[in-house]
Amino acid sequence: MSSFFGQHLRLALFGQSHGEAIGITMDGFPAGMTIDMERILAEMARRAPGQSNLTTPRKEADAPEILSGVLNGRTTGQPICAIIRNTNTRSRDYGEGVDLLRPGHADYTGHVRYFGFEDWRGGGHFSGRLTAPIVFAGALCSQWLEQQGVSMISHIQQLGSVKDDSLMDTFSVDAAELKKMHLPVLRKGIDVEMEKEAMAALRAQDSIGGVIECRVDGLPAGLGAPFFDSVESVLSHLLFSVPAVKGVEFGEGFGFAELRGSQANDPFRMADGKIVTTTNHSGGVQGGITNGMPVIFRCAVRATPSIGQTQQTVSLKSGENADLNIHGRHDPCILPRAVPVIEAMAAIGVMELWKERQACVR
Amino acid sequence: MSSFFGQHLRLALFGQSHGEAIGITMDGFPAGMTIDMERILAEMARRAPGQSNLTTPRKEADAPEILSGVLNGRTTGQPICAIIRNTNTRSRDYGEGVDLLRPGHADYTGHVRYFGFEDWRGGGHFSGRLTAPIVFAGALCSQWLEQQGVSMISHIQQLGSVKDDSLMDTFSVDAAELKKMHLPVLRKGIDVEMEKEAMAALRAQDSIGGVIECRVDGLPAGLGAPFFDSVESVLSHLLFSVPAVKGVEFGEGFGFAELRGSQANDPFRMADGKIVTTTNHSGGVQGGITNGMPVIFRCAVRATPSIGQTQQTVSLKSGENADLNIHGRHDPCILPRAVPVIEAMAAIGVMELWKERQACVR
Amino acid sequence: MSSFFGQHLRLALFGQSHGEAIGITMDGFPAGMTIDMERILAEMARRAPGQSNLTTPRKEADAPEILSGVLNGRTTGQPICAIIRNTNTRSRDYGEGVDLLRPGHADYTGHVRYFGFEDWRGGGHFSGRLTAPIVFAGALCSQWLEQQGVSMISHIQQLGSVKDDSLMDTFSVDAAELKKMHLPVLRKGIDVEMEKEAMAALRAQDSIGGVIECRVDGLPAGLGAPFFDSVESVLSHLLFSVPAVKGVEFGEGFGFAELRGSQANDPFRMADGKIVTTTNHSGGVQGGITNGMPVIFRCAVRATPSIGQTQQTVSLKSGENADLNIHGRHDPCILPRAVPVIEAMAAIGVMELWKERQACVR
Amino acid sequence: MSSFFGQHLRLALFGQSHGEAIGITMDGFPAGMTIDMERILAEMARRAPGQSNLTTPRKEADAPEILSGVLNGRTTGQPICAIIRNTNTRSRDYGEGVDLLRPGHADYTGHVRYFGFEDWRGGGHFSGRLTAPIVFAGALCSQWLEQQGVSMISHIQQLGSVKDDSLMDTFSVDAAELKKMHLPVLRKGIDVEMEKEAMAALRAQDSIGGVIECRVDGLPAGLGAPFFDSVESVLSHLLFSVPAVKGVEFGEGFGFAELRGSQANDPFRMADGKIVTTTNHSGGVQGGITNGMPVIFRCAVRATPSIGQTQQTVSLKSGENADLNIHGRHDPCILPRAVPVIEAMAAIGVMELWKERQACVR
Repeated sequence: MSSFFGQHLRLALFGQSHGEAIGITMDGFPAGMTIDMERILAEMARRAPGQSNLTTPRKEADAPEILSGVLNGRTTGQPICAIIRNTNTRSRDYGEGVDLLRPGHADYTGHVRYFGFEDWRGGGHFSGRLTAPIVFAGALCSQWLEQQGVSMISHIQQLGSVKDDSLMDTFSVDAAELKKMHLPVLRKGIDVEMEKEAMAALRAQDSIGGVIECRVDGLPAGLGAPFFDSVESVLSHLLFSVPAVKGVEFGEGFGFAELRGSQANDPFRMADGKIVTTTNHSGGVQGGITNGMPVIFRCAVRATPSIGQTQQTVSLKSGENADLNIHGRHDPCILPRAVPVIEAMAAIGVMELWKERQACVR
Repeated sequence: MSSFFGQHLRLALFGQSHGEAIGITMDGFPAGMTIDMERILAEMARRAPGQSNLTTPRKEADAPEILSGVLNGRTTGQPICAIIRNTNTRSRDYGEGVDLLRPGHADYTGHVRYFGFEDWRGGGHFSGRLTAPIVFAGALCSQWLEQQGVSMISHIQQLGSVKDDSLMDTFSVDAAELKKMHLPVLRKGIDVEMEKEAMAALRAQDSIGGVIECRVDGLPAGLGAPFFDSVESVLSHLLFSVPAVKGVEFGEGFGFAELRGSQANDPFRMADGKIVTTTNHSGGVQGGITNGMPVIFRCAVRATPSIGQTQQTVSLKSGENADLNIHGRHDPCILPRAVPVIEAMAAIGVMELWKERQACVR
Repeated sequence: MSSFFGQHLRLALFGQSHGEAIGITMDGFPAGMTIDMERILAEMARRAPGQSNLTTPRKEADAPEILSGVLNGRTTGQPICAIIRNTNTRSRDYGEGVDLLRPGHADYTGHVRYFGFEDWRGGGHFSGRLTAPIVFAGALCSQWLEQQGVSMISHIQQLGSVKDDSLMDTFSVDAAELKKMHLPVLRKGIDVEMEKEAMAALRAQDSIGGVIECRVDGLPAGLGAPFFDSVESVLSHLLFSVPAVKGVEFGEGFGFAELRGSQANDPFRMADGKIVTTTNHSGGVQGGITNGMPVIFRCAVRATPSIGQTQQTVSLKSGENADLNIHGRHDPCILPRAVPVIEAMAAIGVMELWKERQACVR
Repeated sequence: MSSFFGQHLRLALFGQSHGEAIGITMDGFPAGMTIDMERILAEMARRAPGQSNLTTPRKEADAPEILSGVLNGRTTGQPICAIIRNTNTRSRDYGEGVDLLRPGHADYTGHVRYFGFEDWRGGGHFSGRLTAPIVFAGALCSQWLEQQGVSMISHIQQLGSVKDDSLMDTFSVDAAELKKMHLPVLRKGIDVEMEKEAMAALRAQDSIGGVIECRVDGLPAGLGAPFFDSVESVLSHLLFSVPAVKGVEFGEGFGFAELRGSQANDPFRMADGKIVTTTNHSGGVQGGITNGMPVIFRCAVRATPSIGQTQQTVSLKSGENADLNIHGRHDPCILPRAVPVIEAMAAIGVMELWKERQACVR
């Protein structure tokens, strides 16, 4: 099953890039929250194309229409469904039917999975466009979580060979400022370096990957569980459902490989009568459960597969090798648009964990 | 909920390190498979302590007792439950009640999560010992998958600063040989380097981390789904439930950050009338669905938190800072024992995906 | 969670009676089925109001708009979402905000459940109108099941004190004929008796209940499971989610109370080399699993709570006792419109069981 | 999947009648509850055979062994697993392998479902013996619910043609007294009539069915949800997983068929500043959600299929018609033993609803 998620907060995602509409239904969302629509639209705008010369100029009408679950601007506690109509979809960019398989895309795997009946147009249900409703749902969760004192910041920690600082070491960050940047980074000027690298890829009719880092502040200790519903399990499940994400790590992540136990352990200390750890190598999660420190994770994002260069492929129709030339404009670097998607998934995951915790009556 | 997993193949894990018994129930396992018990015990022996001077000499009686789901040596298609009695548990190693929180362990988070009612003895339900029933379940899945032509190999790709070759580049591997090695590695002699590094940590009353790499061969194209049940989502969900795993990546993983699209894409070509990719940067998964190439992933494993050195912590009872000295023997490096656990989780995940695919009738 | 169902076939229902739209998303539906839209609309028309003088003349524009999951008239195997816009909703019939609680309705329980934030207009999410998308989803399932040789017939077995024959005894039924009848019954002329009873209730500004009986033919033996996912468990779960259904029984149902084992057991016999039972007291289900005989069940449907008579209630606003007079036209008998809803739920349940069975690989 | 249940409180049932052991794992149970073992054993004793001349004298050693989830007599909040060893199982009563299919049993359907690999001995996984662990789990839930002010009473409302009063009309009942009775009934002396009917069946080498009625007092308003997780849906799902239950109804149930809306509706009134209904035809559930009135339901229980009389069947081995004579003692009437099972299922269902409600944060 591709498009349903959750036990306590439930999502049902639907739609194809060039179908009538895309959308999402979210069940289990708390009743009585006044929706800040402006803010939701702002989050969705961050994901929308055409924000900068790094992203495709294709303009989308991404304004979501809320069909249910909201009355007089407040959530009712019942399923919230929002849809986004598909407009300005230039199908001719994609050719007639799926024939030449686009490397790095799901053309082939989707064709096998759905026995050839899939909607191949513009990636269909696999399209990154499906992340728009996810950002909508995530923005609702973020707003609710904020009322509980939980906040989230993300930045592009790496783009190609250019690296930014890490939220593991950087503590005071102007979140609002970060959200405004086309390339949200921590170290002053590094975004210029990143843009150079991305433009170089663009000039070469190519694209480039990177790493997004996210930190969740304000979480209480006690969310999550050992084994199958660990914080890492729930979050990675969601993060790996973001197209292009191929790696997820928490705290020191793969850096743990070279650390000894004495370096990796986070010592406990009392601070103002509270138990804290003096370091946060674990990224705020121990034994699958939050320890009250910031939850920090990183996602590896592969370069957008759609590039201008001629590529080797095969023709489904002729069953023979062929060359592929993809026309139309595409993002040389998806990272700026992926940041709000990663944040949305994190918000959804934290909300699921929060509700699960809430169910743990005594 | 901590200890249940799956929609098509379902697991229920239970037990505490020092309780009566630990065990697992697996529902949805195919009927009619003749169980190769010797082989299951062999897998469990790989995980058991005392295999080498790298692992604690504490001997466990890890022989599982199958309580249900098997008749005349064949699976019945009904729930399979197996338990392992806890014996030789030297509680005195762990002191009286949870007081001094062990850094890197779940003592603190478990205490919060379970309101102080958790079984603190030897890590309780959080103990790595709980992975023994998981290896049992995984071994059953592996055996069934093998009958479908699916096989699995894993090795320690990194231990501290010592790195082995990668299964991304190494194609012919003697799986049986690999299973026999204390430190399963691809490059001849590299295990000796790794052992040196581990022993150095041991001498320093410390421990060391690493990376485990796994490859699943023989999977058909079409397993998995876009978004919430992508192959990466399902596998990472399971892999991150293994204690000490803090990072998971597929194919090039975090290496994708520096790759351009033209380098990251896997070109399609016809080979003997079959569609294949000439490279496998994606690790066998595109759009969340297997493409028929080997599925390759890596797990970052942190150093065992139990070390001989004195550590800073707090006393739950006094609410004051304190020093912690952990007595008793512990693994300087958990990786050799983690390998069969990672393989077991992969087998369980693939089985879940296989059954989900099977349900996709036409 | 109110509005999600299923493990193998998944549904997400959304919308309120007077919101923007109502709809449903169905995931896991087989790919490649050509949709017979005419037939779906015919099923939905059976549920729609205004079919006869027994049902409210309020006309609905119940034409569903399919937003996703269908391409060129064929299912893609991806989530199918369909919505129905709300039109001609005469809110003034319902007064300003929820104040006077309507007996038999969910005004009070919904108010408590959703902390007063529920959409109270016309029953909101609780409205029987939400069954329209369910009929849409069920019609798709019925069409697919028919291709597997599975068919379904239902009739009104009881309306007030008037009783029809039973599908337990009546074997050859003209299903098409039955679908055409305003009051689908087996015994010639009994519908006239029923209509009299209903009109008598209407004249008394009252309403009347009844029993709907359904038979599913053509199911293979082996669907379902013992205990928690028995055929009866899965079907009753769905049937009891239909507003107004307050009882469900299979085969002899409550009649079993007076039967001895020798009367209740269905003897086995060979017929053309097939194992059959010579009677079908069990209603085609033994040990929670289909036995290849027709699955037969009955649903008790309570009278529509909206009646013209003055009723005792309380005012939420004043917290005092009050009298309630419900204006506007309402169905004196919901049964004719409930029949296609019951069939839809049966089709959805059978499809879920079918897919679960399909996942039982060997 | 047969043997897993629940989203917030999760159960995994396992075992076969003549296997090593039967048992259950329950996850999500609240931490910190002191277990009253005596009381749990008392509940299990009610279900155990040999309580009276109505039930088979076969003595079972039904003492459960708790393997996990409990420390120092208190629940830890982690999975609770309990097993019951199988002893005194007189296999010879059941013949060599499944050959002659027992009418009314799951021999045939289980054989098809599990491709002939099922454990056929004594009903295997289908055996009523599997309800013992369910009673164990339910007793834990009942104890926790009692601490929240929720109590449960059940009685045999009908046995064959003999009918008891209804809990719809009988308000003050001595629950403790009821639990002590071999045939728990409300009306003085009616149990003698019932026993006569049962003994008459026994003398005729036959068995007899009946109806069990249960009332849950003390539930707050607001548990449950519209549609797919209505109180009726969740409870019926569990109740229909009890072997022999073939009908479930709430409040007036099938009696609603003859009631008009004016008779079926429960008028609202203020009482001591609380909103109540002056009648309880709905059985405490409106729109799928509890309304604060007692939840009342009834289960139809078919006669035990194992009878002394010769029955018609077929031989799986010869594929020919045959006569079946079942030797060994069997219950002429399962109802007395079914009562605690029904109560257990109700307790489990209410607990699931309670936790779901708890997760509805605001």
